[in-house]
Amino acid sequence: MVRIGILTVSDRAARGEYADLGGPAIIDWLTSAITSPWQPVRRIIPDGFDSVRDALIAMCDNDKVDLLLTTGGTGPSPRDCTPEATESVIGRVMPGFGEAMRLASLQHVPTAILSRQLAGLRGNCLIINMPGKPSSVAVCLNAVFAAVPYCMDLIGAGRIQTDSAVIAAFRPKGA
Amino acid sequence: MVRIGILTVSDRAARGEYADLGGPAIIDWLTSAITSPWQPVRRIIPDGFDSVRDALIAMCDNDKVDLLLTTGGTGPSPRDCTPEATESVIGRVMPGFGEAMRLASLQHVPTAILSRQLAGLRGNCLIINMPGKPSSVAVCLNAVFAAVPYCMDLIGAGRIQTDSAVIAAFRPKGA
Amino acid sequence: MVRIGILTVSDRAARGEYADLGGPAIIDWLTSAITSPWQPVRRIIPDGFDSVRDALIAMCDNDKVDLLLTTGGTGPSPRDCTPEATESVIGRVMPGFGEAMRLASLQHVPTAILSRQLAGLRGNCLIINMPGKPSSVAVCLNAVFAAVPYCMDLIGAGRIQTDSAVIAAFRPKGA
Repeated sequence: MVRIGILTVSDRAARGEYADLGGPAIIDWLTSAITSPWQPVRRIIPDGFDSVRDALIAMCDNDKVDLLLTTGGTGPSPRDCTPEATESVIGRVMPGFGEAMRLASLQHVPTAILSRQLAGLRGNCLIINMPGKPSSVAVCLNAVFAAVPYCMDLIGAGRIQTDSAVIAAFRPKGA
Repeated sequence: MVRIGILTVSDRAARGEYADLGGPAIIDWLTSAITSPWQPVRRIIPDGFDSVRDALIAMCDNDKVDLLLTTGGTGPSPRDCTPEATESVIGRVMPGFGEAMRLASLQHVPTAILSRQLAGLRGNCLIINMPGKPSSVAVCLNAVFAAVPYCMDLIGAGRIQTDSAVIAAFRPKGA
Repeated sequence: MVRIGILTVSDRAARGEYADLGGPAIIDWLTSAITSPWQPVRRIIPDGFDSVRDALIAMCDNDKVDLLLTTGGTGPSPRDCTPEATESVIGRVMPGFGEAMRLASLQHVPTAILSRQLAGLRGNCLIINMPGKPSSVAVCLNAVFAAVPYCMDLIGAGRIQTDSAVIAAFRPKGA
């Protein structure tokens, strides 16, 4: 069973002052897009480098997630440390994800360039930073998810299938 | 009063052999775009890592500029060290700025990909590398400046307003 | 005489189990595009960080190539280490090349964002990572080669001329 981590990074959501909207937006999108069996693993944590780093490591190494999507903490504010924490736990950066997500978001709002979203690999888990805003989450998943299943194949993560009416996952012939 | 640094990086301009064109191009653009009070802080220095690093630190920490725009020294030539010097003084990189400026410039000239323009944050100052060529300065400012006022808000720099006929600064509702 | 290195990175091609297709695709493209005299310097090596690093250093420092194009090893698989090895031997990254190649490839296939292609400078040699797939090689060379001759001029590499019917190399007036 493929396990997908959804990590909400938000001081206010972690204190319960604010409903987590980014996490449910990711779950909704994945539910509509993925047709093979999968299981969500959710956490809600405060902003901050140590907080995010520790949660990413626990979800990859203990919860054994195959794919890990964060939401929140990617802006320029001092409390936004999700990209730094992500960079500290990955073995390699996948630069195309951040570029493609910023480019797609830029069609909607000029402040998309302020996002420092990063993606990378920790062992056989693909980690991708998503924005905090629910509508932006869908824009970003639409922009990159077609490449996610084949990436997961290549790194030895679980195999997923998608509904091509939502997102047409691409795998080369024979893969 | 918001203070905006304009740092011209050019061996020939610093020696007075060549009129600084990049600095005035930035001043002209900002004068047409910003409607709230602001004050320019200008320096002209030679190329070179130490030269640029020291000027960036002095303008951020002593002159207390809120926004710092460099012009020149972003190409592949050995004397072009502005991005390296910028990287050495910032606490975090803002990758979307360089990507968006190269993409916009690429509509005009294929050698736009040779620019290594970087942007990042030093405390509550946003530093952005601009090209040296005056016409390219306007292309780059048009490509990214709509996101600059909100970025300055988020990092605790001064608040600026723009003329939406020149550039429509974007702030989320309530910001 | 300008020397251009073509480095094929592939376990199977190095063992002779598989014909090298990426290297010949690069040679074919260069042959059609470059009208001034040039000489290819070819190597075929296995994947792996040390293997790629050592070959890049030997081709730059001993073979004295002016331009070095690699093919293969840029994906997310554990054996794909060409970008890491490239980063370890260059003095400066040229970020615009990878961005432009991923963007052009993305018009053809959504998994283009999985490519970690890098470019950078080692002394007066420009190194650019190309994909392994022959059809993707042409897409990437078409996307960036117009900027290559002027880049080579600026770093003190040999001067090349192109057939503008294939690729219109751009040099500023007087360059």
